[in-house]
Amino acid sequence: MAKDRSGNIGEAPIGVFDSGLGGLTVVRRLAAVMPGETIVYLGDTARVPYGIRSLATVRQYALEDAAFLMRFFPKLIVVACNTASAAAVEAIESFCPVEVVDVIRPSAAYALTRTDGAIGVIATEATVASGAYERAIHAIDPRREVISKACPLLVPIVEEGREQDDPIVLYVLGDYLRELQRRRPAVLILGCTHYPLLAGAIGKLMGPQVQLVESGESVAMEVQRRLRAAGLKNRRAEGGSLRCFTTDNVERFARLSERFGGRKVDNVELVGTDELRCEVAKPDRPGLGASTVESGGR
Amino acid sequence: MAKDRSGNIGEAPIGVFDSGLGGLTVVRRLAAVMPGETIVYLGDTARVPYGIRSLATVRQYALEDAAFLMRFFPKLIVVACNTASAAAVEAIESFCPVEVVDVIRPSAAYALTRTDGAIGVIATEATVASGAYERAIHAIDPRREVISKACPLLVPIVEEGREQDDPIVLYVLGDYLRELQRRRPAVLILGCTHYPLLAGAIGKLMGPQVQLVESGESVAMEVQRRLRAAGLKNRRAEGGSLRCFTTDNVERFARLSERFGGRKVDNVELVGTDELRCEVAKPDRPGLGASTVESGGR
Repeated sequence: MAKDRSGNIGEAPIGVFDSGLGGLTVVRRLAAVMPGETIVYLGDTARVPYGIRSLATVRQYALEDAAFLMRFFPKLIVVACNTASAAAVEAIESFCPVEVVDVIRPSAAYALTRTDGAIGVIATEATVASGAYERAIHAIDPRREVISKACPLLVPIVEEGREQDDPIVLYVLGDYLRELQRRRPAVLILGCTHYPLLAGAIGKLMGPQVQLVESGESVAMEVQRRLRAAGLKNRRAEGGSLRCFTTDNVERFARLSERFGGRKVDNVELVGTDELRCEVAKPDRPGLGASTVESGGR
Repeated sequence: MAKDRSGNIGEAPIGVFDSGLGGLTVVRRLAAVMPGETIVYLGDTARVPYGIRSLATVRQYALEDAAFLMRFFPKLIVVACNTASAAAVEAIESFCPVEVVDVIRPSAAYALTRTDGAIGVIATEATVASGAYERAIHAIDPRREVISKACPLLVPIVEEGREQDDPIVLYVLGDYLRELQRRRPAVLILGCTHYPLLAGAIGKLMGPQVQLVESGESVAMEVQRRLRAAGLKNRRAEGGSLRCFTTDNVERFARLSERFGGRKVDNVELVGTDELRCEVAKPDRPGLGASTVESGGR
């Protein structure tokens, strides 16, 4: 188990990474549930989006991101990116000697506790194509029906800054959700960290009898459970902090941070992807070289 | 002037690069106008999209792309990416000892020949924010009015594969084009290499009195003019060929190539971004190191 430099494990930070800014919706939930924790966030904006890369490339990037976070001696790492969770969580678990929480399994497990019927999932094209939510749900209940729908335009719509009552948002959502509206599953997983910003409109279209599950919410609960079980919770009840790194365009990160994380992050720090590569190439980190990443492109 | 290995200049290829697949709409026009030419295309899909990167990063990537194409001893390089054209064309011109044609200046010059009135431009957020079309138009006619509109959702809409008569396509276009429909400029520049795939719908919404200018068209004319002027045209009237490289996900490139380029490219070759970096880092290529790229992030 990781200890911070003073040897006090509970005060070590939680490391969170995502391909971009979407993971800040997870950070927001973590900070709400555990306001005393220190969080270090890495948004790999120089290489976003991960969803259109090959599986081998996503795995390599995700390992580099996790290796960077390991510099801060975290007690737990959150993979706050659906594509990276689908492609690389096992690789990260075998590399990192700390707890690892992804965004897929906690949402799947939580959704199963909320209904005996079919579970809906909306996500990016890459996440739906990976079948990761089906696998996570079927690992617990092999016969559960899953209704998945890829919604490729929702991330760019959120990044464009459109409001939830914008006619285009409602029109596009209406198109994507048609089948799900007809089937009306009791639970709909928002399988992308951008989608909580559209939760109001999605909820309106699906109706009050459909419960929306945000990754951030179930991840925060899972992180709290794991830290408690391992005796790793910070003793502080509040006064936590957030340190943000990005691999490109610090100004854009700072500008968009409020929209995703609920508060503006001013002191965003830049870390080059070259530096991330060096981190992984270090000879004293066996198992992190390029050979670890199997060539698994679909 | 570059010569191919046999010393025959006209038979040297035309090198074309883009951040992704959009540049294949330019290749399609080049091949239509000059069917005897050999074309080498690089789509930097591992680092797409360039539009959300900092200016310094885009310039670095574009130089790496151009340096890779220089391996093929091209007689001319086409920067078939609006963001790279806006950020890096001067840097590429000072580095590459061959003719360089970007996608912005030829469209601007051509549009000016077609009307005495205002010129409309639709493009990505990054291109509009760069002001590159205004600069190119005002370099020729400083008093010409330019009506620009950023259309961030059009690239993802094209990449999602929606047809032009899809209600969502028409609805989103209607939203973006409202002001341009009211002003009705005689010429509308499609300032993004993805937009030709929506030209039918855009033309329908703007009406027949508005002439659409595609980058590919004016670039092909400019390339032909430059090759003629320099005595560099291939003597072959037909029988040209296309060789494609991509930095990631060969399968996705092959799958989408028909949509953008009009014909499926089967033998797509992979070149790693690591290899592109090495190309630029070579000590025998002075002026291409990281120090060349000024820190110009906006």
